[in-house]
Amino acid sequence: MNEKTTPSKPRHVRDVSEWHKTTDVAVIGFGGAGSCAAIEAADAGSRVMIFEAASASGGSTALSSAEVYMGGNGGTRVQRECGLEDKSEDMYNYLMQAGGDFADSAKVKNYVDGSVDHFDWLVSMGAKYKNSIYNERAIMAMTDDCLLYTGSEKAWPYRDIAKPCPRGHNLEVEGDNGGPMLMGILTEQVESRDINVHYDSRALTLIVDDSNSVVGIVVRIDQQELNIKAEKGVILCAGGFVMNEEMLKKYAPSLLKASIPIGNPNDTGFGIKMGMSVGGAAINMHDGFVTLPYYPPSSLTYGILVNASGQRFINEDCYHGRVGYHCLQQPGDRIYLVFSAEDFGEYETQSYLNADIAGTGETLCELEEELGLPNGVLQNTVETYNINAAKGEDPLLHKSDEWLKPIKAPFAALDCTPGRGAFYPYFTLGGLDTLPSGEVVTSNGDVIPGLYAAGRTACGIPRTGACYSSGLSVGDATFTGRMAGKQAAKRK
Amino acid sequence: MNEKTTPSKPRHVRDVSEWHKTTDVAVIGFGGAGSCAAIEAADAGSRVMIFEAASASGGSTALSSAEVYMGGNGGTRVQRECGLEDKSEDMYNYLMQAGGDFADSAKVKNYVDGSVDHFDWLVSMGAKYKNSIYNERAIMAMTDDCLLYTGSEKAWPYRDIAKPCPRGHNLEVEGDNGGPMLMGILTEQVESRDINVHYDSRALTLIVDDSNSVVGIVVRIDQQELNIKAEKGVILCAGGFVMNEEMLKKYAPSLLKASIPIGNPNDTGFGIKMGMSVGGAAINMHDGFVTLPYYPPSSLTYGILVNASGQRFINEDCYHGRVGYHCLQQPGDRIYLVFSAEDFGEYETQSYLNADIAGTGETLCELEEELGLPNGVLQNTVETYNINAAKGEDPLLHKSDEWLKPIKAPFAALDCTPGRGAFYPYFTLGGLDTLPSGEVVTSNGDVIPGLYAAGRTACGIPRTGACYSSGLSVGDATFTGRMAGKQAAKRK
Repeated sequence: MNEKTTPSKPRHVRDVSEWHKTTDVAVIGFGGAGSCAAIEAADAGSRVMIFEAASASGGSTALSSAEVYMGGNGGTRVQRECGLEDKSEDMYNYLMQAGGDFADSAKVKNYVDGSVDHFDWLVSMGAKYKNSIYNERAIMAMTDDCLLYTGSEKAWPYRDIAKPCPRGHNLEVEGDNGGPMLMGILTEQVESRDINVHYDSRALTLIVDDSNSVVGIVVRIDQQELNIKAEKGVILCAGGFVMNEEMLKKYAPSLLKASIPIGNPNDTGFGIKMGMSVGGAAINMHDGFVTLPYYPPSSLTYGILVNASGQRFINEDCYHGRVGYHCLQQPGDRIYLVFSAEDFGEYETQSYLNADIAGTGETLCELEEELGLPNGVLQNTVETYNINAAKGEDPLLHKSDEWLKPIKAPFAALDCTPGRGAFYPYFTLGGLDTLPSGEVVTSNGDVIPGLYAAGRTACGIPRTGACYSSGLSVGDATFTGRMAGKQAAKRK
Repeated sequence: MNEKTTPSKPRHVRDVSEWHKTTDVAVIGFGGAGSCAAIEAADAGSRVMIFEAASASGGSTALSSAEVYMGGNGGTRVQRECGLEDKSEDMYNYLMQAGGDFADSAKVKNYVDGSVDHFDWLVSMGAKYKNSIYNERAIMAMTDDCLLYTGSEKAWPYRDIAKPCPRGHNLEVEGDNGGPMLMGILTEQVESRDINVHYDSRALTLIVDDSNSVVGIVVRIDQQELNIKAEKGVILCAGGFVMNEEMLKKYAPSLLKASIPIGNPNDTGFGIKMGMSVGGAAINMHDGFVTLPYYPPSSLTYGILVNASGQRFINEDCYHGRVGYHCLQQPGDRIYLVFSAEDFGEYETQSYLNADIAGTGETLCELEEELGLPNGVLQNTVETYNINAAKGEDPLLHKSDEWLKPIKAPFAALDCTPGRGAFYPYFTLGGLDTLPSGEVVTSNGDVIPGLYAAGRTACGIPRTGACYSSGLSVGDATFTGRMAGKQAAKRK
């Protein structure tokens, strides 16, 4: 069986001469989604097998900082202990807005309603969250503190739509070590159950019956093709497609303007393709997370981003991902971050950005010339910005007054133009269309019996890089994994 | 069989107890693509049946002005007779740029290489094109003249990428009457051949065999479900999905910000769904054509478009579709076309725009206030524009000097904000992934034997509203219909 072309076509059960293994639920992929799916299915009394392509558990969740976006329902334990009340309505309204045009209200509602329960479940698995807040404008908490703002909750227009509340939950661990810790915890939980784990197992194609129900999966282990019977169903938790350049070119070419794909090598889209091969609808395939990590240092938030016309285009106090997304949308061929030299701060040691200084100047005119921007435009832009900033206002783009102050000489600019060295990591947000239960549906919304998807193999809560928030991918993966595991176990 | 859910699942040939009709090639849809597919398949010696859902031929082509985008290869007869030389390289480079990130080079090359041949073929069918140019900046030729610029060929950045040449070919007919004329010609050609046409025929689902090859189609005629055997294959020419609100919400929700779907009532996406049901990959589903027809009168091109920040965002001499697309992308909630009152011209009688006057003023300050734009920003924008325009320059957005002149008092502004009355028509550009031959492929690029698609059921040459050109849809539909017809006829 040709590996590349395999998921194009399911195997029909009539061509299965032998079942090599039988289980109730076959879970494909042992990352955040797969582990949670397996645990829930097992806890509901099902026999479960996991097939993981790599030699260990982890997936892309282990490579992340494993923040989990949770709240609503009055607040998680941590939110409440920190004196924060988080209404479900606010979380729902924020997530609907953050999902953009493609937001799925049924999924968002389900995620919000189950969010505090999800927190408690993660804690019951062994995840530790300290009752504390990390009060920096940061990409992640580098201390073992828990709560931080990981989205654009405090920025326009979100602040007017929903009461801001920090919902990113960081594990009680210092540094960027949440991913390995979370996957360690979940792996231990899987191992403590009667779940059959197969590593180095390549899922090849689904097995369907006459009614197009999924009844099993073909996997290759030790160079043997095995037909696995899955009496309740197959849950695809095989990640997204950010590592598949051919698929990116076909479905999400604009992401290729960004610089570094984030994910694990098995994020090749094979789970999505398997679903498509039996009529599963792949949706929102063009969109992805992309970011420009221009803070820390947070002081650079006092700066302004301008495009090749010397014009601002986004309130710079937004989440770094929202900003990065808009940078990639700009016409013209340049993006500069312009700031007062005094706000350069600890850029050299703290920044992930990798952007070069593009120009400096004692006057705006000098800087404008050095950057080669159209005569007078940057001067206009900064002067207008400064006049309003001095009054604590940004009538153009509504940056919060917390981050408003006039930009003063000496001036400097960082070159954030895509393709010129600045760090623009990205991953995909499109995948199989599923119900909140994790059941995969066709283009008509009909359930494909026996097929489930979760995590980035499905199109979940996060839908657009334009308003992503950290913690949504691991939050969605672990949550939807659980939903799919429970649903599959329920199947008669 | 439930109509809504039908295309979710193909019928297996083992469930076919009787073949009610047998043909070589079954063409689904009798619009621009379907007629051309049927003619070519018949001319290659195949037995052909057409199944059309409506009671007459036409499809969305009949509702269009039927401009066809053609050129290259030194030029069509009309281009050459008008003294224009059009190199294939220029047409190729323009179309690749106009396709945006999603451009398909193999398809573009095939289209360009075959373009003059396509012109000659249309003429051989009976299409009449006068050797003349319509020299207005217009949406369509209202005279019987042939050639016009129907894209952004003369606008930045395209003018620097490819030598501009008018490639929109308008039939020799006055007024907006090209669509009925072209479909009249093609229908006559179909009728003059031994092609079996069935009207009022609803295609329900594909029929596949054990190897997932398409061997026929189920249609409903006179309330009878008929199994049609198609020995060489089925060609889906069933239009796009602009009339299916549920699909729009799922796949292309941003188009719903526009105002009026353009197409025929059967543009419900059923052809695309049928292809997906057998593993065909639907690509580029989020994008569509959308436009803001702010000319005629062409004099409004001297104006500038500004967003809620009072900033320009596009060179206003672009094609109306490119401009409309960018209007929908703007942050904030307002779009104004600001111009000198003297350029209002014949707006009342010539315009399709339907936009209201949002403000007027003897000074920019007055206009700015009336529009409620942030203090000073519009003044800055216009002053900067005027200083440069007086020099014949637009360093910000590179509008051509042909359309540059300072904007003078008295000033006026039209409200082009989406949702406030301005006319923003749209249609879809996503569809089944096909080879240049019209063969439908899976997510792995594997051909699905016996399945072809053309026109808006496939994802063809036009890929993004950001740089669409008129004549690409009818051009692509008629051209890819021919390719698919020939390819299907060749199949053993």
